[in-house]
Amino acid sequence: MAVGPATFPEKMLPISGFKLGTASAGVKTPGRKDLVIMEVCEGGTVAGVFTKNAFCAAPVQICKKHLDQAAPKFLVTNTGNANAGTGVEGYSDAISVCQSVASEMGCELVQVLPFSTGVIGEKLPVEKIITAVPASKAALTEDGWDDAAEGIMTTDTRIKGASRQFEYDGQVISLTGISKGAGMIKPNMATMLAYAATDAEVASPLLHELLTNAVNCSFNRITVDSDTSTNDSCMLVATAKAGVKVSEENKELLALFSTELNKLMQELAHAIVRDGEGATKFVTISVESAASQTEALSTAYDIAHSPLVKTALFASDPNWGRILAVVGRAGIENLNLEVLEIYLGNVRIVSNGGRDPEYTEDAGQAVMDQEEILIRVVLNRGTFSETVWTTDLSHDYVSINADYRS
Amino acid sequence: MAVGPATFPEKMLPISGFKLGTASAGVKTPGRKDLVIMEVCEGGTVAGVFTKNAFCAAPVQICKKHLDQAAPKFLVTNTGNANAGTGVEGYSDAISVCQSVASEMGCELVQVLPFSTGVIGEKLPVEKIITAVPASKAALTEDGWDDAAEGIMTTDTRIKGASRQFEYDGQVISLTGISKGAGMIKPNMATMLAYAATDAEVASPLLHELLTNAVNCSFNRITVDSDTSTNDSCMLVATAKAGVKVSEENKELLALFSTELNKLMQELAHAIVRDGEGATKFVTISVESAASQTEALSTAYDIAHSPLVKTALFASDPNWGRILAVVGRAGIENLNLEVLEIYLGNVRIVSNGGRDPEYTEDAGQAVMDQEEILIRVVLNRGTFSETVWTTDLSHDYVSINADYRS
Repeated sequence: MAVGPATFPEKMLPISGFKLGTASAGVKTPGRKDLVIMEVCEGGTVAGVFTKNAFCAAPVQICKKHLDQAAPKFLVTNTGNANAGTGVEGYSDAISVCQSVASEMGCELVQVLPFSTGVIGEKLPVEKIITAVPASKAALTEDGWDDAAEGIMTTDTRIKGASRQFEYDGQVISLTGISKGAGMIKPNMATMLAYAATDAEVASPLLHELLTNAVNCSFNRITVDSDTSTNDSCMLVATAKAGVKVSEENKELLALFSTELNKLMQELAHAIVRDGEGATKFVTISVESAASQTEALSTAYDIAHSPLVKTALFASDPNWGRILAVVGRAGIENLNLEVLEIYLGNVRIVSNGGRDPEYTEDAGQAVMDQEEILIRVVLNRGTFSETVWTTDLSHDYVSINADYRS
Repeated sequence: MAVGPATFPEKMLPISGFKLGTASAGVKTPGRKDLVIMEVCEGGTVAGVFTKNAFCAAPVQICKKHLDQAAPKFLVTNTGNANAGTGVEGYSDAISVCQSVASEMGCELVQVLPFSTGVIGEKLPVEKIITAVPASKAALTEDGWDDAAEGIMTTDTRIKGASRQFEYDGQVISLTGISKGAGMIKPNMATMLAYAATDAEVASPLLHELLTNAVNCSFNRITVDSDTSTNDSCMLVATAKAGVKVSEENKELLALFSTELNKLMQELAHAIVRDGEGATKFVTISVESAASQTEALSTAYDIAHSPLVKTALFASDPNWGRILAVVGRAGIENLNLEVLEIYLGNVRIVSNGGRDPEYTEDAGQAVMDQEEILIRVVLNRGTFSETVWTTDLSHDYVSINADYRS
């Protein structure tokens, strides 16, 4: 059901100094790859952004704490169980997993970051996970991206990854990442789970800043179904193995690196939307010339979340009246209907407070028949623009979420 | 597909001084009842509240204007076409319909209030409507509620009405109303369309105040799919025929009348939710002991709009993790997870930041298997409570909105 061609490159560039090892712990389904350990080399830095859901899961709470206390050496991820809504017991379960990894690897407890994704509210099967830690350890390799991309999947229908490379001053810098997520997707700081690494050297505070910026134009601009997960985490590792240092002092390299990182994160975020539960369309919603950033963003999200717009997209129906109705109820103060324009792709559908005189149903239909659709709302009242990406709402979305306990 | 028994009483009490006449204009479907004219007697008062959608339809604009200028004598409603997003032409089309009613009835143009509901963005078939005005006029009767309830339907699967009567000081006061709506339902000031009348005497300013209060605990607390229509209108007529005057001076009668009116409007609003597009559940969401009214209401709406909660309701799945995830992302500042409680019916599912220790899946399942479900979120941080009513999200919702151009 995913939209567009595969979102995993033929060749994922390994990142020197960053290893991934995947195994089967049988958390939910026996034999399924569901445990991934990642190892950060000595001297590597790690940044993370996490869900703003107040009910953030136990592993998220521990990640934040450990990141404050030490330089992380290992990231351990299980799927099949989110360890969210599990109270005090869930917290100690996540610590037990970290402790097991620390013992096996010979590092401090606080150097292990835990991640969980899957069903909310069920007890984490700690024993199963601990039993599989040695197998994950044995599998650790810099070429482990493919297995890891599979190992972090839940309702995803395909693996998601991206790889980029650029040269600076004769040195080659690589960036590689993977992501997962298909439902409960409206990230707020990060998406369900994403891990990226680079061989550039980046000090921790700057790495965090770059990650935050990248997330704000990627994972924080996508929505499948308006629900922010309890487990969203997005991690960025810099191994410092390429012999190139990204810093505030070198503005040119900083800009180059930042651009490449943003593109990587956008690819990973778009891959989640393309694999959104039941998705048959990949929809870009752009709200332009708004009076404020908030106005642009909230209007874009209101359109992206409207079940009536989403079902019209599913039906390939150029039902512009539904888009217009959402813009009208989006809470834009003193909205001037006379100057507002709405476009489907390049086709202007609304102007002067009503249907554009040049608009034809055929022109609108031609846009809606495509798999990738652009909706542009031009408010003509300011200088702020925002873009979000979303899916349609199909029968399969209902089936997936009425059948699956997530 | 509607939830629960019929929402139309066997006997609708006629309101002396208020007549309704229904006919077929063939706006969209030949032979379907789609034109309703209502007549207010001499000395009657009329109050109305309307959609806050910035793209409010031409008839809504005219209603507001005419209400300011004169005492209304006639209300004319067509279905099959919303006359919204139709610009200047739509405005003059609605005026033409009013003019035709004014000529036929022998009143001023400004004494006619127009209402339209149906597809957005298509030209109103003025000629068809005007041609059917004499037939509606001929049908005018105080017993016309049944036909009118049918005449205002669009995607509704059944007619909606309510009637109440109470005595005060030996006098009998009656209230009767009808409503319509099934999709694009998240009223803001009023719902899609509702008309109620009473034979009490109520001066215009007080009538408007009573209507606003009633709407705020009925139509302004329901949602099917989060989209506020461009045509929402809710009208209340007082004919002054019962010989009883409701006024600020008589607090006892005012309170009695207000209570009865609120109940009537709630019945009419609930009837819309019960007939919500694709609905298989009638869901009451109550957020209690919040720090503010806004916090309570927006949290309730966030739950009511979550596609994951709604699909779980459709599946009768006690997936409390999804409810918890919504509360967590509802933007409640400094939410204390330790004191928060969530109930499904009388079953406490969440306490102390996780699953309630007493909770069993069987107990949750027993609640979810019912057709009418209460979700209670007790924040334990203040004194404000709010209740909203909504539906589940089913395959039929997708079918209806992917197939029907509304």
